[in-house]
Amino acid sequence: MHQHDRKIRTIGLADVSEPGDEALITPEVSAALATATDIVGYAPYVTRVQPRDGLTLHPSDNRVELQRAGEALRLAAEGRHVVVVSSGDPGVFAMASAVFEALEDAPQWQDLSIRVLPGVTAMLAAAASAGAPLGHDFCAINLSDNLKPWPLIEKRLRLAAEADFAIAMYNPRSASRPDGFARTLEILKEAGCGERIVIFARAVSTPDQRIETVELRDARPDMADMRTLVIVGNSATRRVGRWVYAPRQVR
Amino acid sequence: MHQHDRKIRTIGLADVSEPGDEALITPEVSAALATATDIVGYAPYVTRVQPRDGLTLHPSDNRVELQRAGEALRLAAEGRHVVVVSSGDPGVFAMASAVFEALEDAPQWQDLSIRVLPGVTAMLAAAASAGAPLGHDFCAINLSDNLKPWPLIEKRLRLAAEADFAIAMYNPRSASRPDGFARTLEILKEAGCGERIVIFARAVSTPDQRIETVELRDARPDMADMRTLVIVGNSATRRVGRWVYAPRQVR
Repeated sequence: MHQHDRKIRTIGLADVSEPGDEALITPEVSAALATATDIVGYAPYVTRVQPRDGLTLHPSDNRVELQRAGEALRLAAEGRHVVVVSSGDPGVFAMASAVFEALEDAPQWQDLSIRVLPGVTAMLAAAASAGAPLGHDFCAINLSDNLKPWPLIEKRLRLAAEADFAIAMYNPRSASRPDGFARTLEILKEAGCGERIVIFARAVSTPDQRIETVELRDARPDMADMRTLVIVGNSATRRVGRWVYAPRQVR
Repeated sequence: MHQHDRKIRTIGLADVSEPGDEALITPEVSAALATATDIVGYAPYVTRVQPRDGLTLHPSDNRVELQRAGEALRLAAEGRHVVVVSSGDPGVFAMASAVFEALEDAPQWQDLSIRVLPGVTAMLAAAASAGAPLGHDFCAINLSDNLKPWPLIEKRLRLAAEADFAIAMYNPRSASRPDGFARTLEILKEAGCGERIVIFARAVSTPDQRIETVELRDARPDMADMRTLVIVGNSATRRVGRWVYAPRQVR
Protein backbone atom coordinates (compact mmCIF):
# COMPACT_ATOMS: atom_id res chain seq x y z
CA MET A 1 0.00 0.00 0.00
CA HIS A 2 1.00 3.64 -0.39
CA GLN A 3 3.31 2.63 -3.18
CA HIS A 4 1.96 5.53 -5.18
CA ASP A 5 3.15 7.90 -2.49
CA ARG A 6 6.70 7.07 -3.49
CA LYS A 7 7.23 7.11 -7.17
CA ILE A 8 9.54 8.40 -9.80
CA ARG A 9 8.57 8.34 -13.39
CA THR A 10 10.97 8.61 -16.26
CA ILE A 11 9.03 10.05 -19.13
CA GLY A 12 9.50 11.40 -22.61
CA LEU A 13 8.35 14.70 -23.91
CA ALA A 14 7.96 13.14 -27.31
CA ASP A 15 9.83 15.85 -29.15
CA VAL A 16 12.39 15.41 -31.85
CA SER A 17 14.00 18.79 -31.48
CA GLU A 18 13.49 21.99 -29.59
CA PRO A 19 10.86 23.34 -29.68
CA GLY A 20 9.03 20.12 -30.39
CA ASP A 21 5.58 19.23 -31.51
CA GLU A 22 3.10 18.64 -28.67
CA ALA A 23 0.96 16.55 -31.02
CA LEU A 24 3.54 13.78 -30.58
CA ILE A 25 3.30 13.64 -26.79
CA THR A 26 1.26 10.62 -25.69
CA PRO A 27 -1.78 10.98 -23.40
CA GLU A 28 0.08 8.76 -20.90
CA VAL A 29 2.87 11.34 -20.69
CA SER A 30 0.45 14.28 -20.50
CA ALA A 31 -1.34 12.61 -17.58
CA ALA A 32 1.94 12.02 -15.76
CA LEU A 33 2.93 15.66 -16.22
CA ALA A 34 -0.48 16.84 -14.98
CA THR A 35 -0.13 14.98 -11.66
CA ALA A 36 3.58 15.57 -11.03
CA THR A 37 4.86 17.63 -8.15
CA ASP A 38 8.41 17.89 -9.54
CA ILE A 39 9.88 18.03 -13.03
CA VAL A 40 13.55 17.12 -13.35
CA GLY A 41 15.62 17.38 -16.53
CA TYR A 42 17.83 19.27 -18.91
CA ALA A 43 16.76 22.91 -18.73
CA PRO A 44 15.42 23.32 -22.31
CA TYR A 45 13.10 20.34 -21.79
CA VAL A 46 11.97 21.32 -18.30
CA THR A 47 10.95 24.76 -19.50
CA ARG A 48 8.51 23.17 -21.95
CA VAL A 49 6.33 22.07 -19.04
CA GLN A 50 3.60 24.59 -18.18
CA PRO A 51 4.15 26.06 -14.67
CA ARG A 52 1.31 25.66 -12.18
CA ASP A 53 0.72 25.85 -8.41
CA GLY A 54 2.23 22.91 -6.59
CA LEU A 55 4.69 22.09 -9.35
CA THR A 56 8.42 22.62 -8.81
CA LEU A 57 10.73 22.73 -11.82
CA HIS A 58 14.31 21.45 -11.42
CA PRO A 59 16.23 22.44 -14.55
CA SER A 60 19.84 21.28 -14.87
CA ASP A 61 22.75 21.60 -17.25
CA ASN A 62 23.76 19.24 -20.01
CA ARG A 63 26.16 16.38 -19.18
CA VAL A 64 25.07 16.01 -15.55
CA GLU A 65 22.73 13.09 -16.23
CA LEU A 66 23.81 10.96 -13.29
CA GLN A 67 23.56 13.75 -10.72
CA ARG A 68 20.17 14.69 -12.16
CA ALA A 69 18.97 11.09 -11.89
CA GLY A 70 20.14 10.95 -8.27
CA GLU A 71 18.26 14.15 -7.51
CA ALA A 72 15.09 12.65 -9.00
CA LEU A 73 15.44 9.51 -6.87
CA ARG A 74 16.05 11.55 -3.73
CA LEU A 75 12.95 13.69 -4.36
CA ALA A 76 10.86 10.57 -5.00
CA ALA A 77 12.14 8.99 -1.80
CA GLU A 78 10.88 12.07 0.04
CA GLY A 79 7.40 11.27 -1.29
CA ARG A 80 7.30 13.63 -4.26
CA HIS A 81 5.73 12.68 -7.60
CA VAL A 82 8.68 13.19 -9.90
CA VAL A 83 8.76 13.20 -13.68
CA VAL A 84 12.15 13.13 -15.38
CA VAL A 85 11.78 14.62 -18.84
CA SER A 86 13.73 13.78 -21.97
CA SER A 87 13.27 14.66 -25.61
CA GLY A 88 11.84 11.76 -27.59
CA ASP A 89 11.74 8.30 -26.01
CA PRO A 90 13.39 8.32 -22.55
CA GLY A 91 14.81 4.83 -23.17
CA VAL A 92 16.78 5.66 -26.34
CA PHE A 93 20.02 7.57 -25.67
CA ALA A 94 18.21 9.51 -22.95
CA MET A 95 17.56 9.63 -19.22
CA ALA A 96 16.12 6.18 -18.42
CA SER A 97 19.50 4.42 -18.37
CA ALA A 98 20.92 7.15 -16.16
CA VAL A 99 18.09 6.69 -13.65
CA PHE A 100 18.73 2.94 -13.41
CA GLU A 101 22.44 3.56 -13.10
CA ALA A 102 21.80 5.93 -10.20
CA LEU A 103 19.43 3.37 -8.68
CA GLU A 104 22.15 0.75 -8.76
CA ASP A 105 24.29 3.02 -6.60
CA ALA A 106 21.44 3.59 -4.13
CA PRO A 107 19.94 0.26 -3.02
CA GLN A 108 17.94 2.02 -0.31
CA TRP A 109 15.73 3.44 -3.08
CA GLN A 110 15.08 0.24 -5.01
CA ASP A 111 11.54 -0.08 -3.67
CA LEU A 112 10.51 3.16 -5.37
CA SER A 113 7.83 2.78 -8.02
CA ILE A 114 9.41 3.58 -11.37
CA ARG A 115 7.61 3.77 -14.70
CA VAL A 116 9.30 4.39 -18.01
CA LEU A 117 6.78 6.03 -20.35
CA PRO A 118 7.67 5.31 -23.97
CA GLY A 119 7.59 8.02 -26.60
CA VAL A 120 8.25 8.75 -30.26
CA THR A 121 12.03 8.60 -30.56
CA ALA A 122 13.76 10.94 -33.00
CA MET A 123 14.48 8.35 -35.68
CA LEU A 124 10.79 7.47 -35.99
CA ALA A 125 9.72 11.08 -36.46
CA ALA A 126 12.59 11.64 -38.88
CA ALA A 127 11.74 8.49 -40.84
CA ALA A 128 8.07 9.47 -41.05
CA SER A 129 8.97 12.91 -42.39
CA ALA A 130 10.96 11.33 -45.22
CA GLY A 131 8.81 8.29 -46.01
CA ALA A 132 9.53 4.82 -44.63
CA PRO A 133 13.30 4.24 -44.55
CA LEU A 134 12.98 2.04 -41.43
CA GLY A 135 10.47 -0.36 -42.99
CA HIS A 136 13.06 -3.14 -43.11
CA ASP A 137 15.72 -4.25 -40.56
CA PHE A 138 17.75 -1.35 -39.16
CA CYS A 139 20.05 -0.21 -36.38
CA ALA A 140 20.49 2.92 -34.28
CA ILE A 141 23.95 4.22 -33.43
CA ASN A 142 24.79 7.19 -31.23
CA LEU A 143 27.74 8.87 -32.96
CA SER A 144 28.84 10.69 -29.83
CA ASP A 145 32.05 9.28 -28.35
CA ASN A 146 31.51 11.00 -25.01
CA LEU A 147 30.57 7.69 -23.36
CA LYS A 148 32.21 5.08 -25.58
CA PRO A 149 35.47 4.74 -27.49
CA TRP A 150 35.44 5.95 -31.08
CA PRO A 151 36.90 2.68 -32.47
CA LEU A 152 33.75 0.89 -31.21
CA ILE A 153 31.62 3.29 -33.25
CA GLU A 154 33.74 2.58 -36.34
CA LYS A 155 33.42 -1.17 -35.79
CA ARG A 156 29.64 -0.93 -35.49
CA LEU A 157 29.38 1.19 -38.63
CA ARG A 158 31.34 -1.39 -40.65
CA LEU A 159 29.30 -4.32 -39.32
CA ALA A 160 26.03 -2.44 -39.87
CA ALA A 161 27.04 -1.82 -43.48
CA GLU A 162 27.94 -5.49 -43.93
CA ALA A 163 24.57 -6.51 -42.42
CA ASP A 164 22.85 -4.16 -44.88
CA PHE A 165 20.91 -2.48 -42.08
CA ALA A 166 19.43 0.94 -42.56
CA ILE A 167 21.37 3.04 -40.03
CA ALA A 168 19.80 5.75 -37.87
CA MET A 169 22.47 8.07 -36.49
CA TYR A 170 21.83 10.08 -33.35
CA ASN A 171 24.01 13.06 -32.36
CA PRO A 172 25.95 13.06 -35.63
CA ARG A 173 27.90 16.24 -35.08
CA SER A 174 28.46 18.96 -32.50
CA ALA A 175 30.84 21.85 -31.93
CA SER A 176 32.93 19.70 -29.59
CA ARG A 177 32.93 16.75 -32.02
CA PRO A 178 33.44 18.32 -35.45
CA ASP A 179 35.24 15.41 -37.15
CA GLY A 180 33.46 12.17 -36.26
CA PHE A 181 30.70 12.55 -38.80
CA ALA A 182 33.14 13.19 -41.66
CA ARG A 183 34.95 10.01 -40.65
CA THR A 184 31.58 8.19 -40.50
CA LEU A 185 30.86 9.11 -44.11
CA GLU A 186 34.35 7.95 -45.13
CA ILE A 187 33.93 4.59 -43.41
CA LEU A 188 30.61 3.98 -45.11
CA LYS A 189 32.07 4.89 -48.49
CA GLU A 190 34.94 2.46 -47.89
CA ALA A 191 32.32 -0.17 -46.96
CA GLY A 192 30.70 0.16 -50.37
CA CYS A 193 27.74 2.30 -49.34
CA GLY A 194 28.44 5.20 -51.73
CA GLU A 195 25.19 4.70 -53.65
CA ARG A 196 22.99 4.41 -50.60
CA ILE A 197 20.43 7.14 -49.99
CA VAL A 198 21.08 9.32 -46.94
CA ILE A 199 18.38 11.37 -45.23
CA PHE A 200 19.32 14.47 -43.26
CA ALA A 201 16.30 15.26 -41.12
CA ARG A 202 16.76 18.53 -39.27
CA ALA A 203 14.47 19.95 -36.57
CA VAL A 204 11.69 17.52 -37.44
CA SER A 205 8.17 18.57 -36.41
CA THR A 206 9.23 22.19 -35.83
CA PRO A 207 8.81 25.23 -38.08
CA ASP A 208 12.52 24.86 -38.94
CA GLN A 209 12.07 21.33 -40.33
CA ARG A 210 14.28 20.59 -43.32
CA ILE A 211 14.61 17.22 -45.03
CA GLU A 212 17.47 16.63 -47.48
CA THR A 213 18.13 13.36 -49.27
CA VAL A 214 21.31 12.64 -51.24
CA GLU A 215 23.39 9.66 -52.26
CA LEU A 216 26.01 8.97 -49.62
CA ARG A 217 28.93 9.77 -51.96
CA ASP A 218 27.48 13.29 -52.29
CA ALA A 219 26.86 13.78 -48.59
CA ARG A 220 28.92 16.50 -46.87
CA PRO A 221 29.69 16.63 -43.15
CA ASP A 222 28.22 20.11 -42.83
CA MET A 223 24.78 18.78 -43.83
CA ALA A 224 24.41 17.62 -40.20
CA ASP A 225 24.40 19.60 -36.99
CA MET A 226 23.17 19.16 -33.40
CA ARG A 227 19.53 19.20 -34.49
CA THR A 228 19.91 16.64 -37.28
CA LEU A 229 18.99 12.97 -37.28
CA VAL A 230 20.70 11.10 -40.12
CA ILE A 231 19.33 7.91 -41.67
CA VAL A 232 21.40 5.92 -44.15
CA GLY A 233 19.19 3.63 -46.22
CA ASN A 234 19.94 -0.02 -46.89
CA SER A 235 21.06 -1.20 -50.34
CA ALA A 236 17.44 -1.57 -51.54
CA THR A 237 16.15 1.78 -50.24
CA ARG A 238 14.62 3.77 -53.08
CA ARG A 239 12.79 6.95 -53.97
CA VAL A 240 9.22 7.39 -55.11
CA GLY A 241 8.36 11.02 -55.83
CA ARG A 242 9.66 13.09 -52.92
CA TRP A 243 9.62 10.04 -50.63
CA VAL A 244 12.29 7.55 -49.60
CA TYR A 245 11.35 4.04 -48.46
CA ALA A 246 12.76 0.60 -47.72
CA PRO A 247 10.92 -2.09 -49.70
CA ARG A 248 9.40 -4.78 -47.49
CA GLN A 249 10.69 -7.60 -49.66
CA VAL A 250 14.36 -8.54 -50.13
CA ARG A 251 15.35 -11.46 -52.32
CA MET B 1 -4.91 24.45 -53.82
CA HIS B 2 -7.40 21.78 -52.90
CA GLN B 3 -4.50 19.52 -52.00
CA HIS B 4 -6.29 18.67 -48.81
CA ASP B 5 -9.17 17.32 -50.82
CA ARG B 6 -6.92 14.52 -51.96
CA LYS B 7 -4.97 12.97 -49.20
CA ILE B 8 -4.03 9.66 -47.78
CA ARG B 9 -2.51 9.39 -44.37
CA THR B 10 -0.62 6.42 -43.13
CA ILE B 11 -0.95 6.40 -39.39
CA GLY B 12 -0.16 4.30 -36.40
CA LEU B 13 -2.56 3.21 -33.75
CA ALA B 14 0.26 3.21 -31.29
CA ASP B 15 -0.51 -0.20 -29.83
CA VAL B 16 1.94 -2.92 -29.05
CA SER B 17 -0.56 -5.75 -29.09
CA GLU B 18 -4.27 -6.27 -29.37
CA PRO B 19 -6.10 -4.82 -27.56
CA GLY B 20 -3.66 -1.99 -27.10
CA ASP B 21 -3.41 0.94 -24.79
CA GLU B 22 -5.05 4.12 -26.06
CA ALA B 23 -2.84 6.17 -23.76
CA LEU B 24 0.00 5.54 -26.25
CA ILE B 25 -1.84 6.98 -29.26
CA THR B 26 -0.51 10.44 -30.09
CA PRO B 27 -2.85 13.46 -30.36
CA GLU B 28 -1.69 13.80 -33.98
CA VAL B 29 -3.06 10.33 -34.73
CA SER B 30 -6.29 10.94 -32.79
CA ALA B 31 -6.89 14.11 -34.80
CA ALA B 32 -6.33 12.27 -38.08
CA LEU B 33 -8.78 9.56 -37.08
CA ALA B 34 -11.35 12.16 -36.06
CA THR B 35 -11.37 13.80 -39.50
CA ALA B 36 -11.05 10.67 -41.65
CA THR B 37 -13.76 9.51 -43.99
CA ASP B 38 -12.24 6.06 -44.52
CA ILE B 39 -10.19 3.71 -42.36
CA VAL B 40 -8.19 1.04 -44.17
CA GLY B 41 -6.22 -1.75 -42.53
CA TYR B 42 -5.95 -5.22 -41.10
CA ALA B 43 -9.33 -6.05 -39.57
CA PRO B 44 -8.30 -6.26 -35.89
CA TYR B 45 -6.81 -2.76 -36.09
CA VAL B 46 -9.67 -1.22 -38.07
CA THR B 47 -12.21 -2.42 -35.54
CA ARG B 48 -10.45 -0.42 -32.82
CA VAL B 49 -11.62 2.81 -34.48
CA GLN B 50 -14.92 4.08 -33.06
CA PRO B 51 -17.66 4.01 -35.75
CA ARG B 52 -19.44 7.28 -36.52
CA ASP B 53 -21.60 8.84 -39.22
CA GLY B 54 -19.63 9.60 -42.35
CA LEU B 55 -16.86 7.12 -41.55
CA THR B 56 -16.44 3.98 -43.65
CA LEU B 57 -14.36 1.12 -42.31
CA HIS B 58 -12.44 -1.07 -44.78
CA PRO B 59 -11.15 -4.10 -42.87
CA SER B 60 -8.96 -6.58 -44.74
CA ASP B 61 -7.17 -9.87 -44.11
CA ASN B 62 -3.58 -10.39 -43.09
CA ARG B 63 -0.94 -10.72 -45.84
CA VAL B 64 -2.74 -8.51 -48.37
CA GLU B 65 -0.73 -5.39 -47.56
CA LEU B 66 -0.09 -4.34 -51.15
CA GLN B 67 -3.72 -4.68 -52.27
CA ARG B 68 -4.80 -2.81 -49.13
CA ALA B 69 -2.34 0.00 -49.89
CA GLY B 70 -3.65 0.22 -53.44
CA GLU B 71 -7.22 0.47 -52.18
CA ALA B 72 -6.20 3.31 -49.87
CA LEU B 73 -4.56 5.21 -52.73
CA ARG B 74 -7.61 4.69 -54.96
CA LEU B 75 -9.96 5.99 -52.28
CA ALA B 76 -7.73 9.01 -51.69
CA ALA B 77 -7.62 9.70 -55.42
CA GLU B 78 -11.43 9.83 -55.32
CA GLY B 79 -11.17 12.66 -52.79
CA ARG B 80 -11.67 10.68 -49.59
CA HIS B 81 -9.72 11.39 -46.39
CA VAL B 82 -8.13 8.01 -45.81
CA VAL B 83 -6.26 6.76 -42.76
CA VAL B 84 -4.34 3.50 -43.06
CA VAL B 85 -3.99 2.01 -39.61
CA SER B 86 -1.16 -0.15 -38.28
CA SER B 87 -0.25 -1.32 -34.80
CA GLY B 88 2.65 0.65 -33.38
CA ASP B 89 4.69 2.88 -35.68
CA PRO B 90 3.48 2.60 -39.30
CA GLY B 91 7.06 2.95 -40.58
CA VAL B 92 8.54 -0.05 -38.70
CA PHE B 93 7.62 -3.41 -40.25
CA ALA B 94 4.15 -2.05 -40.97
CA MET B 95 2.02 -0.41 -43.66
CA ALA B 96 4.03 2.68 -44.67
CA SER B 97 6.47 0.80 -46.90
CA ALA B 98 3.54 -1.01 -48.58
CA VAL B 99 1.84 2.31 -49.36
CA PHE B 100 4.99 3.68 -51.01
CA GLU B 101 5.46 0.43 -52.91
CA ALA B 102 1.89 0.71 -54.24
CA LEU B 103 2.54 4.36 -55.08
CA GLU B 104 5.54 3.39 -57.17
CA ASP B 105 3.26 1.21 -59.29
CA ALA B 106 0.74 4.04 -59.72
CA PRO B 107 2.47 7.20 -60.91
CA GLN B 108 -0.92 8.84 -61.60
CA TRP B 109 -1.38 9.09 -57.82
CA GLN B 110 2.00 10.57 -56.93
CA ASP B 111 0.54 14.04 -56.37
CA LEU B 112 -1.58 12.78 -53.48
CA SER B 113 -0.79 14.33 -50.11
CA ILE B 114 0.68 11.62 -47.92
CA ARG B 115 1.62 11.97 -44.27
CA VAL B 116 3.24 9.26 -42.21
CA LEU B 117 2.30 9.80 -38.56
CA PRO B 118 4.93 8.31 -36.26
CA GLY B 119 3.96 6.24 -33.24
CA VAL B 120 5.37 4.23 -30.36
CA THR B 121 6.77 1.12 -32.02
CA ALA B 122 6.56 -2.19 -30.15
CA MET B 123 10.21 -2.34 -29.12
CA LEU B 124 9.98 1.02 -27.33
CA ALA B 125 6.93 -0.01 -25.31
CA ALA B 126 8.53 -3.39 -24.58
CA ALA B 127 11.80 -1.77 -23.54
CA ALA B 128 9.99 0.70 -21.26
CA SER B 129 8.12 -2.12 -19.55
CA ALA B 130 11.40 -3.86 -18.71
CA GLY B 131 13.63 -0.86 -17.94
CA ALA B 132 16.01 0.67 -20.49
CA PRO B 133 17.57 -2.12 -22.59
CA LEU B 134 17.74 0.18 -25.64
CA GLY B 135 19.72 2.90 -23.89
CA HIS B 136 22.83 2.09 -25.92
CA ASP B 137 23.30 1.25 -29.64
CA PHE B 138 20.85 -1.39 -30.88
CA CYS B 139 19.24 -2.97 -33.93
CA ALA B 140 15.78 -4.19 -34.89
CA ILE B 141 15.35 -7.40 -36.88
CA ASN B 142 12.07 -8.84 -38.16
CA LEU B 143 12.45 -12.62 -37.69
CA SER B 144 9.75 -13.43 -40.22
CA ASP B 145 11.13 -14.91 -43.41
CA ASN B 146 7.92 -14.27 -45.36
CA LEU B 147 9.54 -11.40 -47.26
CA LYS B 148 13.27 -12.16 -47.07
CA PRO B 149 15.46 -15.25 -47.21
CA TRP B 150 16.21 -16.94 -43.89
CA PRO B 151 20.01 -16.94 -44.48
CA LEU B 152 19.92 -13.13 -44.51
CA ILE B 153 18.32 -13.18 -41.07
CA GLU B 154 21.06 -15.52 -39.81
CA LYS B 155 23.76 -13.27 -41.25
CA ARG B 156 22.27 -10.21 -39.58
CA LEU B 157 22.01 -11.98 -36.23
CA ARG B 158 25.69 -12.96 -36.34
CA LEU B 159 26.81 -9.45 -37.32
CA ALA B 160 24.56 -7.86 -34.69
CA ALA B 161 26.14 -10.09 -32.04
CA GLU B 162 29.62 -9.19 -33.26
CA ALA B 163 28.72 -5.47 -33.17
CA ASP B 164 27.48 -5.96 -29.58
CA PHE B 165 24.16 -4.33 -30.40
CA ALA B 166 21.14 -4.93 -28.22
CA ILE B 167 18.78 -6.75 -30.60
CA ALA B 168 15.02 -6.10 -30.74
CA MET B 169 13.25 -8.99 -32.48
CA TYR B 170 9.86 -8.48 -34.10
CA ASN B 171 7.61 -11.41 -35.05
CA PRO B 172 9.80 -14.01 -33.33
CA ARG B 173 7.48 -16.97 -33.74
CA SER B 174 4.17 -17.95 -35.29
CA ALA B 175 2.24 -21.13 -36.02
CA SER B 176 3.49 -21.07 -39.62
CA ARG B 177 7.09 -20.40 -38.53
CA PRO B 178 7.65 -22.63 -35.50
CA ASP B 179 11.40 -23.24 -35.91
CA GLY B 180 13.07 -19.93 -36.77
CA PHE B 181 13.19 -18.63 -33.23
CA ALA B 182 14.79 -21.82 -31.89
CA ARG B 183 17.42 -21.42 -34.60
CA THR B 184 17.84 -17.76 -33.62
CA LEU B 185 18.65 -18.71 -30.04
CA GLU B 186 21.15 -21.33 -31.27
CA ILE B 187 22.92 -18.83 -33.51
CA LEU B 188 23.27 -16.33 -30.69
CA LYS B 189 24.61 -19.01 -28.36
CA GLU B 190 27.16 -19.99 -31.02
CA ALA B 191 28.07 -16.30 -31.29
CA GLY B 192 28.98 -16.19 -27.61
CA CYS B 193 25.83 -14.46 -26.34
CA GLY B 194 24.84 -17.19 -23.84
CA GLU B 195 25.23 -14.89 -20.85
CA ARG B 196 23.32 -12.00 -22.33
CA ILE B 197 20.00 -11.04 -20.73
CA VAL B 198 16.93 -11.69 -22.88
CA ILE B 199 13.60 -9.95 -22.31
CA PHE B 200 10.37 -11.61 -23.43
CA ALA B 201 7.76 -8.85 -23.44
CA ARG B 202 4.33 -10.25 -24.18
CA ALA B 203 1.16 -8.23 -24.82
CA VAL B 204 2.75 -5.04 -23.50
CA SER B 205 0.31 -2.35 -22.28
CA THR B 206 -2.62 -4.81 -22.18
CA PRO B 207 -4.11 -6.64 -19.19
CA ASP B 208 -2.29 -9.77 -20.43
CA GLN B 209 1.14 -8.12 -20.15
CA ARG B 210 3.88 -10.49 -19.03
CA ILE B 211 7.59 -9.65 -18.84
CA GLU B 212 10.13 -12.46 -18.42
CA THR B 213 13.88 -11.96 -18.30
CA VAL B 214 16.39 -14.83 -18.47
CA GLU B 215 19.95 -15.41 -19.55
CA LEU B 216 20.01 -16.40 -23.22
CA ARG B 217 21.39 -19.87 -22.49
CA ASP B 218 18.24 -20.51 -20.43
CA ALA B 219 15.80 -19.11 -23.00
CA ARG B 220 13.37 -21.58 -24.55
CA PRO B 221 11.68 -21.12 -27.94
CA ASP B 222 8.21 -21.50 -26.39
CA MET B 223 8.77 -18.36 -24.30
CA ALA B 224 7.84 -16.36 -27.44
CA ASP B 225 4.62 -16.31 -29.45
CA MET B 226 2.87 -13.99 -31.91
CA ARG B 227 2.26 -11.38 -29.22
CA THR B 228 5.85 -11.30 -27.91
CA LEU B 229 8.58 -8.77 -28.59
CA VAL B 230 12.02 -10.14 -27.70
CA ILE B 231 14.97 -7.94 -26.76
CA VAL B 232 18.45 -9.44 -26.36
CA GLY B 233 20.66 -7.17 -24.31
CA ASN B 234 24.20 -6.22 -25.24
CA SER B 235 27.19 -7.62 -23.35
CA ALA B 236 26.99 -4.86 -20.72
CA THR B 237 23.24 -5.02 -20.10
CA ARG B 238 22.54 -5.60 -16.43
CA ARG B 239 19.82 -5.93 -13.82
CA VAL B 240 18.96 -3.56 -11.01
CA GLY B 241 16.08 -4.83 -8.87
CA ARG B 242 13.37 -6.01 -11.25
CA TRP B 243 14.70 -3.79 -14.04
CA VAL B 244 17.04 -4.45 -16.96
CA TYR B 245 19.06 -1.64 -18.50
CA ALA B 246 21.94 -0.90 -20.86
CA PRO B 247 24.56 1.30 -19.19
CA ARG B 248 25.23 4.53 -21.05
CA GLN B 249 28.98 4.17 -20.79
CA VAL B 250 31.08 1.48 -22.49
CA ARG B 251 34.84 1.40 -22.08
